[in-house]
Amino acid sequence: MDIEQFRKAGYQAVDRICEYYYTLQNRSVIPKVEPGYLKNYIPPCAPEAGEDFQLIADDYQNFILPGLTHWQHPSFFAYFPTACTFEGMIGDLYSSSACNPGFNWSSSPACTELEVTMMDWAAQLLGLSPVFLNSSAIGGGVIQTSASDSALLVVVAARSLYQRNHAEAKLEDLVIYTSTQTHSLGVKAGLVLGLQVRAINVKLEDEFSLRGDTLKAALKEDAKLGKRPFILIATVGTTSSGAIDNLPEIQEVAREHPDLWVHIDAAWAGVALSCPENRGKLYLRETNDFADSFCTNFHKWGLVNFDFSALWVRDRSNLVDALEVTPVFLRSKQDDSGMAIDYRNWHLGLGRRFRSLKLWFVLRSFGAEGFRKHIRRAIELNNLFAGLISESKILSLVTPSSFALSVFRLVPAGVQDDLSLEALNELNRSLFGRLSARQDIMLTQTNLNGIFCIRLVVGAVRTDEQHVRNAYDVVAEEAEGVLQAWHQTTATPSD
Amino acid sequence: MDIEQFRKAGYQAVDRICEYYYTLQNRSVIPKVEPGYLKNYIPPCAPEAGEDFQLIADDYQNFILPGLTHWQHPSFFAYFPTACTFEGMIGDLYSSSACNPGFNWSSSPACTELEVTMMDWAAQLLGLSPVFLNSSAIGGGVIQTSASDSALLVVVAARSLYQRNHAEAKLEDLVIYTSTQTHSLGVKAGLVLGLQVRAINVKLEDEFSLRGDTLKAALKEDAKLGKRPFILIATVGTTSSGAIDNLPEIQEVAREHPDLWVHIDAAWAGVALSCPENRGKLYLRETNDFADSFCTNFHKWGLVNFDFSALWVRDRSNLVDALEVTPVFLRSKQDDSGMAIDYRNWHLGLGRRFRSLKLWFVLRSFGAEGFRKHIRRAIELNNLFAGLISESKILSLVTPSSFALSVFRLVPAGVQDDLSLEALNELNRSLFGRLSARQDIMLTQTNLNGIFCIRLVVGAVRTDEQHVRNAYDVVAEEAEGVLQAWHQTTATPSD
Repeated sequence: MDIEQFRKAGYQAVDRICEYYYTLQNRSVIPKVEPGYLKNYIPPCAPEAGEDFQLIADDYQNFILPGLTHWQHPSFFAYFPTACTFEGMIGDLYSSSACNPGFNWSSSPACTELEVTMMDWAAQLLGLSPVFLNSSAIGGGVIQTSASDSALLVVVAARSLYQRNHAEAKLEDLVIYTSTQTHSLGVKAGLVLGLQVRAINVKLEDEFSLRGDTLKAALKEDAKLGKRPFILIATVGTTSSGAIDNLPEIQEVAREHPDLWVHIDAAWAGVALSCPENRGKLYLRETNDFADSFCTNFHKWGLVNFDFSALWVRDRSNLVDALEVTPVFLRSKQDDSGMAIDYRNWHLGLGRRFRSLKLWFVLRSFGAEGFRKHIRRAIELNNLFAGLISESKILSLVTPSSFALSVFRLVPAGVQDDLSLEALNELNRSLFGRLSARQDIMLTQTNLNGIFCIRLVVGAVRTDEQHVRNAYDVVAEEAEGVLQAWHQTTATPSD
Repeated sequence: MDIEQFRKAGYQAVDRICEYYYTLQNRSVIPKVEPGYLKNYIPPCAPEAGEDFQLIADDYQNFILPGLTHWQHPSFFAYFPTACTFEGMIGDLYSSSACNPGFNWSSSPACTELEVTMMDWAAQLLGLSPVFLNSSAIGGGVIQTSASDSALLVVVAARSLYQRNHAEAKLEDLVIYTSTQTHSLGVKAGLVLGLQVRAINVKLEDEFSLRGDTLKAALKEDAKLGKRPFILIATVGTTSSGAIDNLPEIQEVAREHPDLWVHIDAAWAGVALSCPENRGKLYLRETNDFADSFCTNFHKWGLVNFDFSALWVRDRSNLVDALEVTPVFLRSKQDDSGMAIDYRNWHLGLGRRFRSLKLWFVLRSFGAEGFRKHIRRAIELNNLFAGLISESKILSLVTPSSFALSVFRLVPAGVQDDLSLEALNELNRSLFGRLSARQDIMLTQTNLNGIFCIRLVVGAVRTDEQHVRNAYDVVAEEAEGVLQAWHQTTATPSD
């Protein structure tokens, strides 16, 4: 493809993306395809001769688009939506056009420099302490792929620091602390590194928040066993229910355990810190006071196209000390001078894409006020949904709604006390089965200490009041269907 | 930005990218900026109110472009060039527009399915054995970010497998084997995982290839010490000199060490397997016969925009067994049925971008024959350069030229025997200093067992004969300059 052919194909791609967004809400959220569908349309090996790009572009429309789950659909309420923006797309396009694996300053100065500044913009937007800014020259921020990558990286840094301070420590005795509600990133870090993970129990009555006393008891117990907990992954806004670990209590405990690195995983909820009214509930002060690292994903609720996991550390030397390995062929005079950050020592791989461009485009185009408006709007819409659930006679919230997330289940009025947890779970699995069979809406399930629940998360840019009301109507209608079927099954012949 | 504003900004981005490529060869390869330059143009925090996108797009042109190292410049011969294509850009744009973190089949079926098929296309293009194909349902391929990520992943899989087979093994006794010429990815995997790394010595007289006897001796020695080497990272095309480890000999040794996972890192040279004439030299048969995993980066020489590191394993269950952790909120009926690959268990993080689209666009638009043509052209151009060096009286190759890579140094004719290695190195550091001070060309340095060398790699799509000849002229001219200065310094007063 030459330059003029690119111009033509590029215009067409832009036009087709416009068309995609104009028609998005008429599409089904979930594609009507079965595993293996694509084999019918794509040959098993590459063509020998080159093909016309128009044919290729058409095949994307005909075979790929119909097989995508539309995360940007206004009725996508599953997982955590990725709030992707046109600004982000243009950022990705420019980034791809000047394609380079900017692993250090000299391999592409603008890539490092814009990332340095954008991570400071983002930190200030969220109200993070100046100690986390790159301009502090002590702490600093860096883009990772996902919150799992961010957590894995800080576990590595924390382990390396712990080993430097305790040369006698065996890897077999090290323990990663999480709660039972921590995202799978905790267990996965343990699997990757071959280290033990202890998931500390959290309770429904605490709204699944990790408490100081429970942490303290675990530390005491493990100390007796000769185990060495070296990092706690605390969560601000868990995936299952949006629970927030009790950072003030954890801070008290951590004070007496200076070897325990505390990482705050605020993958989803962290961007809500942009609005001052959320900062108390999200324990910003405590994060600023004592967290060793903090992560939030701008690619979830934060308007930046996947991927953009933002990670900050209080002391950058802990990353570099753990990971620095600079062979001769990667050296340059600027990097050696220490005048520039070498981001290759701030992540696990080597090459990295130019992702800061997306955040720059988004934050300038929306402005801080536009960013906050987007966050507040999602919270309002979720409050609307949570309110409808609360008013319902057959549905109820399992935990208080959390920012843009509601966790609910079917609980038929009047019969709650008569039904076992398992029977209620069965009804709710049935409800979720009905919802999953639909293609016009997408929600996900979860399990909270044995309670089968359904999650709804607002966050896609195009979601509006009508979509949230419709979501409630769909849920209520399917719930009625489940109840009718249940009444028929449980009805005695004499009824 | 609404849909019509995106159309406008998108067209403009396409036009500006066209302009960038029309003018690329008139730009300097290396930007004329000093560390910290961008602070002068970008305020320290995000604007409160949104800005007009035209202003933002102009700032990209004015402040970012001039700070990029132009990896696509025809005179970029540093590191390993990333051969980015327009097809790849359009792939990235479509991918960003339907933005989703496709971590499993149901989160976006087309993402998983196209990756499954594209990795099979790529495997067949390179001549890999059917055992590595996804269609084998035993082995399989997956996209990773960089070769460092690929290597780290297989080290984790190999360690996990070893631990399952040797429950008594302590992490402290495990050893990762590399050669002294292995890319930093080996040492980094050791740092990340807290495991020992043993870099086995390779020699100039073996052209820096790891030999079977050396490996065997190391294994014997470590066995006596109670150490447990569990993986060997062998290289086909090292970064420093393009050396190829002796896979036939390694295969012989590995036969007697079934616990030793052998990973082939062909990050750069692997795509040359697309041309049958290279397969013998690159030991394809041995890779197919016994390698446990194989990696090559299509984002280097393989026409696909960064990032696209292709990794294949002989037994996919080793990845899944090491990494599977599926919480309830990530479960779905399709994934549970085992009918689809869950790529979240095939890499270290969770979310993943839709990268297979780029390879699909590239391989269809170029065709297999177009892909091979690109590879052969770079080899021819490098042969041209290596030929000019060989004919020179003051420059000489340090190792035989390897595919698209030449490693050379300044060796003044007639004085070679009189000069110590250190004195020659000093001359070459001076030559590299002069070359690095220029902005019209970019090369990188390396060190081969104490010999300071300069590397030139062909691979950028727009590099042509004139650019290679010019590169030689520039090197020769600067080398003459170094010699003149040296003669002046060493001239006796009576001269």
